[in-house]
Amino acid sequence: MTTPTGSMGLIVVGAAGRMGQALIRTIADIEGVHLTGAIERPGSDALGKDAGELAGLGSNGVIVTDDALPVFAQAEGVLDFTAPAATLGFAELAAQARIVHVIGTTGMDESHEARLHAASRHARIVKSGNMSLGVNLLSVLVRQAAKALEASDWDIEVLEMHHRHKVDAPSGTALLLGEAAAEGREIGLGQHSVRIRDGHTGPREPGTIGFATLRGGSVIGEHSVLLAGEGETVELTHRAIDRSIFARGAVRAALWARAQKPGYYSMLDVLGLADH
Amino acid sequence: MTTPTGSMGLIVVGAAGRMGQALIRTIADIEGVHLTGAIERPGSDALGKDAGELAGLGSNGVIVTDDALPVFAQAEGVLDFTAPAATLGFAELAAQARIVHVIGTTGMDESHEARLHAASRHARIVKSGNMSLGVNLLSVLVRQAAKALEASDWDIEVLEMHHRHKVDAPSGTALLLGEAAAEGREIGLGQHSVRIRDGHTGPREPGTIGFATLRGGSVIGEHSVLLAGEGETVELTHRAIDRSIFARGAVRAALWARAQKPGYYSMLDVLGLADH
Amino acid sequence: MTTPTGSMGLIVVGAAGRMGQALIRTIADIEGVHLTGAIERPGSDALGKDAGELAGLGSNGVIVTDDALPVFAQAEGVLDFTAPAATLGFAELAAQARIVHVIGTTGMDESHEARLHAASRHARIVKSGNMSLGVNLLSVLVRQAAKALEASDWDIEVLEMHHRHKVDAPSGTALLLGEAAAEGREIGLGQHSVRIRDGHTGPREPGTIGFATLRGGSVIGEHSVLLAGEGETVELTHRAIDRSIFARGAVRAALWARAQKPGYYSMLDVLGLADH
Amino acid sequence: MTTPTGSMGLIVVGAAGRMGQALIRTIADIEGVHLTGAIERPGSDALGKDAGELAGLGSNGVIVTDDALPVFAQAEGVLDFTAPAATLGFAELAAQARIVHVIGTTGMDESHEARLHAASRHARIVKSGNMSLGVNLLSVLVRQAAKALEASDWDIEVLEMHHRHKVDAPSGTALLLGEAAAEGREIGLGQHSVRIRDGHTGPREPGTIGFATLRGGSVIGEHSVLLAGEGETVELTHRAIDRSIFARGAVRAALWARAQKPGYYSMLDVLGLADH
Repeated sequence: MTTPTGSMGLIVVGAAGRMGQALIRTIADIEGVHLTGAIERPGSDALGKDAGELAGLGSNGVIVTDDALPVFAQAEGVLDFTAPAATLGFAELAAQARIVHVIGTTGMDESHEARLHAASRHARIVKSGNMSLGVNLLSVLVRQAAKALEASDWDIEVLEMHHRHKVDAPSGTALLLGEAAAEGREIGLGQHSVRIRDGHTGPREPGTIGFATLRGGSVIGEHSVLLAGEGETVELTHRAIDRSIFARGAVRAALWARAQKPGYYSMLDVLGLADH
Repeated sequence: MTTPTGSMGLIVVGAAGRMGQALIRTIADIEGVHLTGAIERPGSDALGKDAGELAGLGSNGVIVTDDALPVFAQAEGVLDFTAPAATLGFAELAAQARIVHVIGTTGMDESHEARLHAASRHARIVKSGNMSLGVNLLSVLVRQAAKALEASDWDIEVLEMHHRHKVDAPSGTALLLGEAAAEGREIGLGQHSVRIRDGHTGPREPGTIGFATLRGGSVIGEHSVLLAGEGETVELTHRAIDRSIFARGAVRAALWARAQKPGYYSMLDVLGLADH
Repeated sequence: MTTPTGSMGLIVVGAAGRMGQALIRTIADIEGVHLTGAIERPGSDALGKDAGELAGLGSNGVIVTDDALPVFAQAEGVLDFTAPAATLGFAELAAQARIVHVIGTTGMDESHEARLHAASRHARIVKSGNMSLGVNLLSVLVRQAAKALEASDWDIEVLEMHHRHKVDAPSGTALLLGEAAAEGREIGLGQHSVRIRDGHTGPREPGTIGFATLRGGSVIGEHSVLLAGEGETVELTHRAIDRSIFARGAVRAALWARAQKPGYYSMLDVLGLADH
Repeated sequence: MTTPTGSMGLIVVGAAGRMGQALIRTIADIEGVHLTGAIERPGSDALGKDAGELAGLGSNGVIVTDDALPVFAQAEGVLDFTAPAATLGFAELAAQARIVHVIGTTGMDESHEARLHAASRHARIVKSGNMSLGVNLLSVLVRQAAKALEASDWDIEVLEMHHRHKVDAPSGTALLLGEAAAEGREIGLGQHSVRIRDGHTGPREPGTIGFATLRGGSVIGEHSVLLAGEGETVELTHRAIDRSIFARGAVRAALWARAQKPGYYSMLDVLGLADH
């Protein structure tokens, strides 16, 4: 790894996907970083193509490859919004290369997390279910509100809306916000969440955290946490207007992590909102 | 029945319940109507008590009774937010007395509806899942929007929020708004509604109507219909701020129905928004 | 003018501006239309450049020019989001060429309108303050709601939010929605609008229509019309998620107008929502 | 002053007004407090009447008077939502009696504040522009969000809606939230607030805090603080559903202040949200 001066060389994995292309465009947009590698899985149609052309930027000379090892050896960081199995492999490569690994991959379970923590002895891992500044701020405010307002008097509900193509519910970010609320109340989310309401439900059980899901159109992502008390409500909402916020957050995370010791970090660390 | 001049004499059934008491207070508030009877079920603690005192108005001389027949014979209308079985009995009494029967009771099935239609040969029945002016206007706007916007391009979602004590979901009004959307699209709601989203849902199926439910605090009732297209959304929302809107709507319906022929009417008829 | 079969040839005026480029990209995207000309004002840096390259599409062989006359002679329609003086000139050219003129230009006063009406004896003019399907539907719903709800009981407010770069307030679309409300009530907007509230305002005057403006970030455009009554509110909202909705609406208007007689039309005509 | 055990005796000033009556009803509702006095201004029609009857509770034996001194001598606290001049007089009486003075009065300027601070050497003063739990929590979250998000990238807007009878704008609570945002950014609100937008405004000036006002119907009070960045927005909203939240907050403040030393406190102190 080179010293943290000059422009930071970054790899994009999953380079031919929608998020991969957004990352490539964002790297070209932001000063202080440049693209040094573009990885796709074996068999991808994109192998051998120019990454800049794939992303609609015009040729940039970085050729998409499935041979990650030499690419990792020449970079300072990797941006990764792929899938759990692929991400675990990249984390090991990042640990070997002792570089930064920014992870936006969702759907990772506890055994995956354990392997990421192991990799973070040598890699600088930043992982978040949502890379946007606004969502991460919101999670801090939600935790604080949930802590200040007594669970016996105030009911918490998490509402999210996404475009018609999204295939799972609730969104990872909705669960992240639910976790923040549960943390504020010092309870486990799993035992207190209500994810279905249909037919005869009975009255709302005190202390639970409800989830509701809307799907439609091309909505990029909206999340609201409602705290509803006797005679008043507090509502904390985030709206994503532009998909580039996730890519920009990832680049910002990479730049921040470049100057840190190896370890496992979150976007709250990046934003200075963590309370250790 | 007396001729439709002078103050209209009204009965409240379910007089000791929360909605019954609100009706009694509203009747006292509005010019052109007065309370002539207050009915409760046999065995109720309220029997023999003064209806005005029960409602916090001070004594008004109307004693709560379970003997409906003589009370119906002396009135011009009955306001009824009870339960399906009770409502069917009151509809028969209203038909015998040839008076107005305003029904806000929810949970009635097709066999119940058939019996109400039979009663409406002699009674003037006004029935609605929601007596507020705003909700009924909203249902007309929703039907029209659903008709104007093509189902292949625009997704429809119905969101509702109510207080923590509500025991069923979606609310009757949410279903009424879903019906309005389905009518605009000339489809059946039953075959096209999606009432649960949890876990792997797959992409949204075109042409469906989704429902989502929030519960918390003391929220009286909020309903939103979202129409989400490519690049834009339209959202039509109603908020009840004060429970009295339902009682006032019922009184308004009674006054309107007094001048009509026997028949089965909706709040859209009362408000002049029906398109026959 | 050619007969209305085959792909429709369209001109973009103000071709080097942000909206002009969006129009060029949208024309390339939609079947049944193609770009035949790109106009800029004399002295523009863009003169002589390839319009496709300007719009980030790659070369398409259409060279930007300031010589409109020969270009108009070869086209079936012109898309125009420029400024009042320029638009009047283009309307005369469109009338001479007897083609379609779609006008999204804002800030035109009554004398401008008179000249557009004169041009519409020969041109097919479609003019709207907002070309999106959703906003035009909303204006119809607002007019209807304003008509149904009595002005003595229901207060109307128009709220809009746009990005930080917008230089005027309220937005043209907010005024268009205010006009729809005024029309529903059969009043003039000018004498009944309230555009400033600061300090001691006194109680709200019945029958007025209020405007409020928010500015910030990169919000593309949000408009809400609130109807607030005693105990309940109705809120009708449109959100633009993607700037392309205006360009797509303009192309849709051009395709519709191609088959019409010369005349002055609105987006409500295009969408079949006008009630003549 | 008696020792802080047993039920706390409270005075309501402005006892015949809408807020005064709500306070009297709330005191009757909450355990641990009781009404010991009811004050109105000289000449009021309410003088000599029973305060309980005025408030619709039935007689409670407390007679409305304009002779405050003996009443203050017998009480432990006074609840005051009157006007600046009256409040200054009551603060002096509260200081003489060394009791609790809960102040919800709005419109007080710096010279008024100086006199309240003087009185707080002997009185326990709790003053807030809004006594609700939710609004005070919101102000803490707003300050924190304004601090975390850089002013060069994020625009702050404060939106409020109230019923048609409200005579000033922006509301005291909107200003309180604006102050919280300004504090988070370490700027003065006065020099950075934008309260009017109409006509040609030019682009939004970075670092300003905008205010917008809606009025209509019977809306009790809604406040939103928007933080709008490039590609995303965060919105923090409070809705009052029931006017009793302010009266309950005032009683809660009185009970809390009973155990404190003389001084000048805010609702943040009462709620444990202050960061001294």
